[in-house]
Amino acid sequence: MKKMNGIAASSGIAIAKVYELKEPELNFDKTSIDNPETEVERLESALEISRQELEKIKEHTLKELGEEHAEIFSAHLLVLGDPELITPIKDKINDDKVNAEAALDEVATMFIQMFKGMDNEYMRERAADIQDVTKRVMSHLLQVTFPDPALIDEQVIVIAKDLTPSDTAQLNREFVKGFATDIGGRTSHSAIMARSLEIPAVVGTKEITGAVKKDDQIIVDGIEGTVIINPTDEEIKVYEEKQAAFARQQAEWAKLKDEPTFSADGEQVELAANIGTPNDVEGVLNNGGEGVGLYRTEFLYMGNSELPSEDVQFEAYKSVLEKMEDKPVVVRTLDVGGDKEISYLDMPHELNPFLGFRAIRFCLENEHVFRPQLRALLRASAYGNLKIMFPMIATLEEFRQAKALLLEEKDNLQNDGVEVSESIEVGIMVEIPSTAVIAKQFAKQFAKEVDFFSIGTNDLIQYTMAADRMNEQVSYLYQPYHPAILNLVNNVIEAAHAEGKWAGMCGEMAGDSTAIPLLLALGLDEFSMSATSILPARTQILGLNKKELASLKDQFLSLSTAEEVVALAEKTINK
Amino acid sequence: MKKMNGIAASSGIAIAKVYELKEPELNFDKTSIDNPETEVERLESALEISRQELEKIKEHTLKELGEEHAEIFSAHLLVLGDPELITPIKDKINDDKVNAEAALDEVATMFIQMFKGMDNEYMRERAADIQDVTKRVMSHLLQVTFPDPALIDEQVIVIAKDLTPSDTAQLNREFVKGFATDIGGRTSHSAIMARSLEIPAVVGTKEITGAVKKDDQIIVDGIEGTVIINPTDEEIKVYEEKQAAFARQQAEWAKLKDEPTFSADGEQVELAANIGTPNDVEGVLNNGGEGVGLYRTEFLYMGNSELPSEDVQFEAYKSVLEKMEDKPVVVRTLDVGGDKEISYLDMPHELNPFLGFRAIRFCLENEHVFRPQLRALLRASAYGNLKIMFPMIATLEEFRQAKALLLEEKDNLQNDGVEVSESIEVGIMVEIPSTAVIAKQFAKQFAKEVDFFSIGTNDLIQYTMAADRMNEQVSYLYQPYHPAILNLVNNVIEAAHAEGKWAGMCGEMAGDSTAIPLLLALGLDEFSMSATSILPARTQILGLNKKELASLKDQFLSLSTAEEVVALAEKTINK
Repeated sequence: MKKMNGIAASSGIAIAKVYELKEPELNFDKTSIDNPETEVERLESALEISRQELEKIKEHTLKELGEEHAEIFSAHLLVLGDPELITPIKDKINDDKVNAEAALDEVATMFIQMFKGMDNEYMRERAADIQDVTKRVMSHLLQVTFPDPALIDEQVIVIAKDLTPSDTAQLNREFVKGFATDIGGRTSHSAIMARSLEIPAVVGTKEITGAVKKDDQIIVDGIEGTVIINPTDEEIKVYEEKQAAFARQQAEWAKLKDEPTFSADGEQVELAANIGTPNDVEGVLNNGGEGVGLYRTEFLYMGNSELPSEDVQFEAYKSVLEKMEDKPVVVRTLDVGGDKEISYLDMPHELNPFLGFRAIRFCLENEHVFRPQLRALLRASAYGNLKIMFPMIATLEEFRQAKALLLEEKDNLQNDGVEVSESIEVGIMVEIPSTAVIAKQFAKQFAKEVDFFSIGTNDLIQYTMAADRMNEQVSYLYQPYHPAILNLVNNVIEAAHAEGKWAGMCGEMAGDSTAIPLLLALGLDEFSMSATSILPARTQILGLNKKELASLKDQFLSLSTAEEVVALAEKTINK
Repeated sequence: MKKMNGIAASSGIAIAKVYELKEPELNFDKTSIDNPETEVERLESALEISRQELEKIKEHTLKELGEEHAEIFSAHLLVLGDPELITPIKDKINDDKVNAEAALDEVATMFIQMFKGMDNEYMRERAADIQDVTKRVMSHLLQVTFPDPALIDEQVIVIAKDLTPSDTAQLNREFVKGFATDIGGRTSHSAIMARSLEIPAVVGTKEITGAVKKDDQIIVDGIEGTVIINPTDEEIKVYEEKQAAFARQQAEWAKLKDEPTFSADGEQVELAANIGTPNDVEGVLNNGGEGVGLYRTEFLYMGNSELPSEDVQFEAYKSVLEKMEDKPVVVRTLDVGGDKEISYLDMPHELNPFLGFRAIRFCLENEHVFRPQLRALLRASAYGNLKIMFPMIATLEEFRQAKALLLEEKDNLQNDGVEVSESIEVGIMVEIPSTAVIAKQFAKQFAKEVDFFSIGTNDLIQYTMAADRMNEQVSYLYQPYHPAILNLVNNVIEAAHAEGKWAGMCGEMAGDSTAIPLLLALGLDEFSMSATSILPARTQILGLNKKELASLKDQFLSLSTAEEVVALAEKTINK
């Protein structure tokens, strides 16, 4: 037996024999051709078959995994139809009189190299898309069979160098018990999909494909991030027990699905979920979410070629509100820019996009984008418990401007006889230090004017520490437990409570088991997290004494390093 | 007469007739040639003449303006000798059998387009360098005379679309009384040079070259940023008075050159200067600087092809310390990264360089770069009053690590019998919110361990507001007077004073006449600014009552918007 470590990408334990998903060989010779028309026709036909396949995969993904995941294939379909890519391939066939394979390869390689070399995450992802699509088209030109994970009909663990999004989307939960790859990280597309599919997965093992052979049995431990090849009977027994314990724990959690969230000493908090599309609501309800704490509306705008209309938006918001019945739904207005570019919005290239023209900054300058969203939200408010939140608020003036636009559109709608709820709360994301920082007086002025605060820790931490959380070389500075962060969070909660308002948190920190006791100590009212974290969090809170924790508050706030904070938090949890 | 507005780039008033500096026409025909060797020789010769010219301009600049400005021409010389640029030109002559002009133009245009299109300020500047150099080489190929500002021999105001660094460096102060351009901003190379040369200048007028003709008389008002073409006699009189008043004010300021800085009620503060090279010390002393509050050491590393040796650094630091006699000199250790790339350090390309692997983060990971600088500083400490400051400190751990390395090298040197001062103060730049923020307790812990704080407002503001100060679309958020900034500055000063330490400021804010009363109210001890701002600041402080201002402190800190802060500050100044 052999054990190797990777990155735990999706929880759970799988034990089964391996199935290696191998990339087909796509070799060809460059040849001179006499009849370019025939080659162009061969290309067109390969493009068309690829298009049909991708449409099918997209539909399947939409059904199994929801809109957000299906967007990847919308992007692939856009690549297939992009004249900037296809026209040069045809030109090459016609002008250079070469076969379609050579023309496709040369043009695609040029684009892939170009995008890969760009100093821009988004462009590098485009390179991966082009690569994925090109391979598919090439396989049809060469009439080589593309691997089809949908054909798997026995219980296996899939092993691959990497899984493309199209591979992952096609994995059949009935037969595929888990997967392990050589490359990839916790936030790669395939890892995110594995969590949605609830398939245990370990990625980034570096060497799994080289270490296994056909019919090897392996264990994938997606809790610890380890893979064991040809385990002994004893090991299998240990892992079967671990698997059973995980199942028991899940069953335990499931019992709390329809319960409210109370601490051991009877203090209530709200556990809500972060979502991206109406399809995500099912997962929220299945996991016992008491509300939606963050509805990211960007997915309505991404993977499209034009702005979503007011009506399209209205339907999406209404659908979420209706499905959530009267549970609170906090919708964040459009947060474009930063790492989220939208082609048709013609946004500027920026040297430091995280410090750039994004979110509310962009919306206040582009009312033709902002007003339709506000109108769609106001119209949808009649169908549930809507709260609206503006992202990236750095100054009071920005909040006042955004709220004024909202009230203007509310008047317009009401004058036209459209029903609008009178009890919409309007709040802000606190993710910029200027807003969280500081003198009670300033935060207090905010608390007088907003209905609620939702602390966005992902951005708040990266700005407060001046460290891009996507940049591996400074990721050690992305410290949720840095005393500055705790004190900022505390500022916000104290300012909110002093004015009788509530404070939530919708960053990754809110679902972290080390952070939860701390946040409870600081008095956080609403915790918004991934749907799958809600039941574990509810279980944890049930065992915590809020008053006892609160008595440690000043001690936590006076520490000097993240290390000291974590040490005290862990001592508190484990005592 | 006609009046137009531009950007005030360098103070003072100039009245004289215009001299238009025009770019020569560089037209050529692309021709087929039979003898590539001859064309390559013509190219070599044009390159050689250009090299000699640039060497001369560089020397002249070094003498007149100092090392920092001369670096631009080192960069130009590197372009001239870069085989990645020159080899393809020669290849094109040999392979395509075209004349040298066509080959130069095609290759240079390709590189310029490529660099211009990059999402990176540094690369875009390289495009400008290549353009400047290519024009010079082309003029020699075509035997067209390049404009030579050094030939001007009567009193004029120079007018141009834009001034290249090489143009500006050659302006002769005796004859060139001022300049005005169509394009450029306050921080363009030519504007910075104008301030060093003390020539009044207005840039970015958009239309000056189209609006004047030969022998027109004009007034350049570098205080207000206006240009008047063919003024009436009355206007000339008004401006001559303004000119005289400016001269009187300068004379008034000059009287305070050797005076200490006291407020009206007898409280002393220190006014120091920011410098980049040993050559800048002269300007500091001429302008009455009481110390150097920020010696940026990056220029030692830039425009070179390899790391500066420990000895080269030692000589530079020693030179500054000796020239400053026993006045304090705060040296900031290497702050690379962000917008400052250094080719031979092989730094990573980053999506958000301002939030990236820079300054102390880079140095702690690259001891082969950091230790020689620390050793050079320690050796130089014997020659004056040295204080060492670490940039971009986000956590206590970083400071502790940096200080440990410093003490280790001190031991090493002392063991080798090298003299090291025993009274070097070791402090930090406060420019990351996490360090400024927050709970007295945390800042207090810092104050226990450092000898001083120097607040770097340029970065502190951009991180606290999450707005890149170089990005025009969010520049409205670069708010020095935002209440969050004032409160952070106050936190730092209070924490320092509580532990008996001093606090300074070395961002642009420290020299701003609106900020000075506020900073005095908050109790700032040291103000470090451009040398030319020192005497006006000393004059202003002489008229301010610190105790009276301090009584307004809580009022300032409790305001909610930058607008309210500025309004109160201006009311305070003007009452």
